[in-house]
Amino acid sequence: MDRIPILKLGEALLVTIQVDMHDRLAMALEEDLTARIVEQSAKGVLIDISALEIVDSFIGRTLANIAMIARILDAETVVVGMRPAVAITLVELGLSLPGVRTALNAERGMAMIKNRIDDHDPIAADGEEGDC
Amino acid sequence: MDRIPILKLGEALLVTIQVDMHDRLAMALEEDLTARIVEQSAKGVLIDISALEIVDSFIGRTLANIAMIARILDAETVVVGMRPAVAITLVELGLSLPGVRTALNAERGMAMIKNRIDDHDPIAADGEEGDC
Repeated sequence: MDRIPILKLGEALLVTIQVDMHDRLAMALEEDLTARIVEQSAKGVLIDISALEIVDSFIGRTLANIAMIARILDAETVVVGMRPAVAITLVELGLSLPGVRTALNAERGMAMIKNRIDDHDPIAADGEEGDC
Repeated sequence: MDRIPILKLGEALLVTIQVDMHDRLAMALEEDLTARIVEQSAKGVLIDISALEIVDSFIGRTLANIAMIARILDAETVVVGMRPAVAITLVELGLSLPGVRTALNAERGMAMIKNRIDDHDPIAADGEEGDC
């Protein structure tokens, strides 16, 4: 696979990461997402990682990069579906996913994005990480 | 990968197929979807195949099976994001995806499912295939 599909749902873009991302795939995802945020005036990016058993520093950095790029383009990034073991490993590795908001599942993540569109205000939702 | 992730969004379940499905993966998807439809009282199943360059008779049959199972459980299946070349190949192969509704993209597919939830009635949307 050379591209991860990006689905538009309302004002949000949805990405499900199912395969281990190598360099090129991660770069393609960054580029595609950036282009789609601008083209479709997206206000939010929802990234589901429930299929990932391992999130290493490369994927962590990719997610952080996407969140930063999206923020500059006035879109919020929410990572959803992180497995408990992945969260433990991330903390053990000292990776705190700076700038990345998280939610327990896609439904809550979508609610966070919708709330943000409605009142353009940080949302206090369960399972969310600090916004910096 | 041994499982394709299923996301719940409102009363719909969303699946993005990104890899070629072998027998076991297809069976696991059927089982997982069936269980989730019942657990979460889902009214619709949205299957995005925009990442698939080839839909052979096996995948076609899997999609038709899922649609039939979902229908028995009172949920509607909408396949979205089919590439033009895939549509051409399907017709050339004589595969008409019986019982599978289609929409051009995820947004329209979700609208079809929402309409169906609202008035429990077949929807006349662009890009949709006959319901049989």
